[in-house]
Amino acid sequence: MKLSVLGSGAVGAAVVELAGEYGHEVVAVADSASAAVDESGLDAEAVLERKRTDGRVGDADADAALEADYDVLVEATPTTLGDAEPGFSHVKQALERDRHVVLANKGPVAERYDELRSLEADSAGSVRFEAAVGGAIPILSTIADLDGQVTAARGVLNGTANFILSRMAAEGLGYEHVLAEAQDLGVAEADPTFDVEGTDAALKCVILANVLYEDTYTLEDASVEGIADLPGSALELAAEDGRTIRLIGDVSDGEVSVAPRLVPENGTLAVSGTLNIIQLETAHAGQLNISGRGAGGPETASAVLADVGRLPPLE
Amino acid sequence: MKLSVLGSGAVGAAVVELAGEYGHEVVAVADSASAAVDESGLDAEAVLERKRTDGRVGDADADAALEADYDVLVEATPTTLGDAEPGFSHVKQALERDRHVVLANKGPVAERYDELRSLEADSAGSVRFEAAVGGAIPILSTIADLDGQVTAARGVLNGTANFILSRMAAEGLGYEHVLAEAQDLGVAEADPTFDVEGTDAALKCVILANVLYEDTYTLEDASVEGIADLPGSALELAAEDGRTIRLIGDVSDGEVSVAPRLVPENGTLAVSGTLNIIQLETAHAGQLNISGRGAGGPETASAVLADVGRLPPLE
Repeated sequence: MKLSVLGSGAVGAAVVELAGEYGHEVVAVADSASAAVDESGLDAEAVLERKRTDGRVGDADADAALEADYDVLVEATPTTLGDAEPGFSHVKQALERDRHVVLANKGPVAERYDELRSLEADSAGSVRFEAAVGGAIPILSTIADLDGQVTAARGVLNGTANFILSRMAAEGLGYEHVLAEAQDLGVAEADPTFDVEGTDAALKCVILANVLYEDTYTLEDASVEGIADLPGSALELAAEDGRTIRLIGDVSDGEVSVAPRLVPENGTLAVSGTLNIIQLETAHAGQLNISGRGAGGPETASAVLADVGRLPPLE
Repeated sequence: MKLSVLGSGAVGAAVVELAGEYGHEVVAVADSASAAVDESGLDAEAVLERKRTDGRVGDADADAALEADYDVLVEATPTTLGDAEPGFSHVKQALERDRHVVLANKGPVAERYDELRSLEADSAGSVRFEAAVGGAIPILSTIADLDGQVTAARGVLNGTANFILSRMAAEGLGYEHVLAEAQDLGVAEADPTFDVEGTDAALKCVILANVLYEDTYTLEDASVEGIADLPGSALELAAEDGRTIRLIGDVSDGEVSVAPRLVPENGTLAVSGTLNIIQLETAHAGQLNISGRGAGGPETASAVLADVGRLPPLE
């Protein structure tokens, strides 16, 4: 497949770098201000090197990547809420041109799912978004593969919040101290709001709800509580009882919620560090637990490229 | 799809019971001595009730289920080693009739993989065997879905052995004592050889190797050590070091092995009770861990029926 990659952050750059290994070709890459386009195939190393040295991927306008002759648009620009722009317009334009779309950007899938599915219905292209939920964990394809048998999902869907809670519990340190440490390590961003207030986990749960219930949830339908106000004493109390606290996203009985929850200290849901885990309830096969890396450039890119591999050929 | 189900043990009976819920129809069922055939669809409850009361599923010869007009042969007779008969001949006959085959029986896939694939190549039918590895855990479809990115697999693939090791470690009891308890609970069979000597886990690893390496391993290629000779003192020593012992199957670098291994006490591989876990190494996405129920009638049947759902329509 010929890919046009929008976004040249960790995920976009890794898609460009790894595409060849999955048998695909990158014909365009854009960052917010520029684009590189070569319909006979870009030199991945040269584009990424230019981004590192010049701060831009090429000389063309960013829009050139949208207008290129590609098979699959990879939408890896930053997630935005509400109207989910500019991601949503990128996706719209690709589907109206009868091209496939693979998203790492959660915005359009969480906030405008009904419009996304309706654009897809009118297009020869398909939309996939495995990378938007749980990074490298193939959670959406597992749900699809289990063919209607999954009844509920819950788990740890934000590695930054999980790192902070794991460290607070293991070291008896306070929230602010561990957050600063996570920022130094690059595990938390300078503005950690999205992760620590539960928004990122909630967007993933909304996407899971859209898929599980074939309905159109948005962030407004989710009940969301983060970890920023969690006192260290709460973790100490939990530990005295053989438990710990994790930021758990839950999609069950038609409801979507994210909140700090007590879980058994060595239980399945108490993954450590930046790991993610998702627990699926099935009709006849009990619980299925899948854990792995929920973020990271190559990890998320591998989910994007697996999605590309699942697309049918375009006529 | 119209199913003919060979085997009316826990798995076969659960396939018969649940097929309708997955949108399929059972037209034949056989146990070792008899069969029930109705090409317009069997009454599942009546067949299972007859098995419970009469000890046989119907009045026809067992062969009648092989000769019925079905789309998919479900091979759920007991696993046998070496020539893997009679399972292998059942599969051969179905493929030669251009029908699909779904196996829960590990024998033909572990012991005669090359012949199986060559029969499939000459047939309009396809062969699937998700239920043969890890029960309800969709491990083979995950490997296929990750499209060549899985480089190695390891894990706990036998629930009986894991139950025994978990109990020995938790209660400080000896092997013979816990085995007797497992037999009382129905977790271990009267003759537990297959499970405790590692044969069952090894067959699953051989199947994983066949899929991962697209090669033809058999049980003879596996290095196999069980838990029957493991002294309780080994578990005590491990515990003093924050570790425990699990029967770990490993498929890596072209080698297949099963043996008791030290693992961190609260680590990912130290699942409890009859749970199974499989850990996949991937090229770019780190480790992926999947745990769930590795055995049980409805659980394994759900894997069989998910496989049926993955089959292409027959012309």
